[in-house]
Amino acid sequence: MKINAAQIYQSLEEIRAKTPLIHNITNYVVMNNTANALLAIGASPVMIHAEEEVEDMAAMASALVINIGTLSPSWVRGMFKALAKAVSKSIPVIVDPVGAGATPYRTRTIRELISAGQPTIIRGNASEIMALTGDRLNTKGVDSTAASNEAFQAAQNISEKHHCAVCISGAIDYIVESKRMMKVANGHPMMTKVTGLGCTASALCGAFAVVDNNPLEAAAKAMVVMGIAGEMAVEKSAGPGSLQMNFLDILYNLSANDISQHLKMEE
Amino acid sequence: MKINAAQIYQSLEEIRAKTPLIHNITNYVVMNNTANALLAIGASPVMIHAEEEVEDMAAMASALVINIGTLSPSWVRGMFKALAKAVSKSIPVIVDPVGAGATPYRTRTIRELISAGQPTIIRGNASEIMALTGDRLNTKGVDSTAASNEAFQAAQNISEKHHCAVCISGAIDYIVESKRMMKVANGHPMMTKVTGLGCTASALCGAFAVVDNNPLEAAAKAMVVMGIAGEMAVEKSAGPGSLQMNFLDILYNLSANDISQHLKMEE
Amino acid sequence: MKINAAQIYQSLEEIRAKTPLIHNITNYVVMNNTANALLAIGASPVMIHAEEEVEDMAAMASALVINIGTLSPSWVRGMFKALAKAVSKSIPVIVDPVGAGATPYRTRTIRELISAGQPTIIRGNASEIMALTGDRLNTKGVDSTAASNEAFQAAQNISEKHHCAVCISGAIDYIVESKRMMKVANGHPMMTKVTGLGCTASALCGAFAVVDNNPLEAAAKAMVVMGIAGEMAVEKSAGPGSLQMNFLDILYNLSANDISQHLKMEE
Repeated sequence: MKINAAQIYQSLEEIRAKTPLIHNITNYVVMNNTANALLAIGASPVMIHAEEEVEDMAAMASALVINIGTLSPSWVRGMFKALAKAVSKSIPVIVDPVGAGATPYRTRTIRELISAGQPTIIRGNASEIMALTGDRLNTKGVDSTAASNEAFQAAQNISEKHHCAVCISGAIDYIVESKRMMKVANGHPMMTKVTGLGCTASALCGAFAVVDNNPLEAAAKAMVVMGIAGEMAVEKSAGPGSLQMNFLDILYNLSANDISQHLKMEE
Repeated sequence: MKINAAQIYQSLEEIRAKTPLIHNITNYVVMNNTANALLAIGASPVMIHAEEEVEDMAAMASALVINIGTLSPSWVRGMFKALAKAVSKSIPVIVDPVGAGATPYRTRTIRELISAGQPTIIRGNASEIMALTGDRLNTKGVDSTAASNEAFQAAQNISEKHHCAVCISGAIDYIVESKRMMKVANGHPMMTKVTGLGCTASALCGAFAVVDNNPLEAAAKAMVVMGIAGEMAVEKSAGPGSLQMNFLDILYNLSANDISQHLKMEE
Repeated sequence: MKINAAQIYQSLEEIRAKTPLIHNITNYVVMNNTANALLAIGASPVMIHAEEEVEDMAAMASALVINIGTLSPSWVRGMFKALAKAVSKSIPVIVDPVGAGATPYRTRTIRELISAGQPTIIRGNASEIMALTGDRLNTKGVDSTAASNEAFQAAQNISEKHHCAVCISGAIDYIVESKRMMKVANGHPMMTKVTGLGCTASALCGAFAVVDNNPLEAAAKAMVVMGIAGEMAVEKSAGPGSLQMNFLDILYNLSANDISQHLKMEE
């Protein structure tokens, strides 16, 4: 039941045709880029966080993406309310545990969020994923990329406990769900020099989860599209500034041929 | 009393010469782009939202731009205070009802803001403008672009009730004020794939309203400049990423000739 | 004891090698650019503001950068807590008094912050620096660039009182610390048309202060690198949009040769 380039492109075309409304409660740093990436892929982004209106917004959305990059109590209240509405509607919920493990506040908050709502996909780097299990409580910021065996074990445990797909982003992305695992080797190291591309990946997971109800495959498709657009953008870029721009252009124009020529995925 | 290309350029030159201070209370997603667009056009942007200081800031500003994209109660309090100060000083007030109709909270808030203060220009897409009148309460996100007869009627009603210009942005922008209507056909569909260009348009309305005290004409000039810069940027752009960059470059360099060659406006 | 191009490049290489974690509590407008500039220079940025976690974050960081661009009471509480932790750990603290003098709230807040914690470097434009001393309480927004004698006197007074380096940014940057003064003439006027490059300069001061424990020299090195990257970017840019992009690319690739060829600094 491996997915191939044609299926990935088909999902992309479905996003472009349906322009699903993706409700993001995300951090200040990346809001603009996340919105632009969702627009470039063909989705319709909305960024609304206040507890006064998140339920109404989530009620209209096709997916909810929660990202804890710049937490504060009022935003956390909004996240919980949006989450409850999303779960009650059974729309996909993507959780990005930015910086989990860096402070007790964010580690506690993200664990509570994951326990309160049924996530569809959790996407983070290795140290963030490990922080979700309680095995580790410290991480140096948000850019650790090593996908160690320990992280892999954590991802499997979380996947089983919460019945969701877990994606460990890194040089190779590992996406696990109970008994299945997919590896995506697309991407380029320069992508780590652009802030928020991880957050963008989580948002794209939201778009793919709307058109593919298999969480593992939706996450894998999103990571492939991210990685290929990033790789292709790096080829045209003198540095991270132009990479950020070219990434959006390429995402917007991504063709079936681009995907089939660059795909590096295995199950 | 039609305005022509030379008059539009003259207003642009006046903005460049005066560098008017534009006080923006806007959303997290677009703050950076809005500030950059105001700088590129020659204005001086300031983004200050806290109720502790908005009155002091509005007291120094030449125009106030209120945009409800990412609302929350403390920001709304800041908006009301800034609005009252702006009205007491008789500086232009631009209102951008982002996502009006999407949730009761934002529909209610924007109606209260418009009733509390005398707006000079209200700029939104068709569904947002319709939401202001109470005829419609639902919209799918923030990217509806159809300027229907219904929206046109709503714009006229709002204009008469609040004595302001109302601009319905879309493939064609309709700007109405009591008995006058102007249509601007500049722009390009790819502009809808860059987040926040509508918000930028509202901010530019603020700059033009400082140098042209006819709200209808100020709004029309802003929409022309937006649209022409967007059109010219699309010609050089491979996608929405480069469009965002080229838009700022072109806005910064926009010449009298650019305007006269591209102008598509009628009254 | 003048610093030269080789020493500036050595500090840059040290940042690239150590990837110091820079904790930023900064404004909404520039967060993305600031994070990207820190990544481009080789540092590891984190943006965390909530009082619930700033102490834990500052405890892990190598430097703290506080920027008051978009103030509000809850953020101010976070700033004070982070500041206290940074001082207790003796890590460098950079303060950017954005818009000081524009409103009583921000003038009072920034003075309290500076008095509460021992800043290492304070960087602002002339009117912001003057506002710190109580001599002036009004400024037109945030883009004044004249480094008057009065500002220079203010900088010296602040430096002596708070035992820190003070940098007045402008066409020429003046960096003072008690008896020393350095002038950096790198940079280009178009940089004032990109929002937040001043804020970026402050963040880069944070990175350089980690690898150079002389505050004056660290600030001068940061201003040189900013200015040279800006100058070189302008040469390749059609306007402020492409300048913003090229600035990051050039910062990422900046070589010893670039610095030695462009350096305009005197003591």
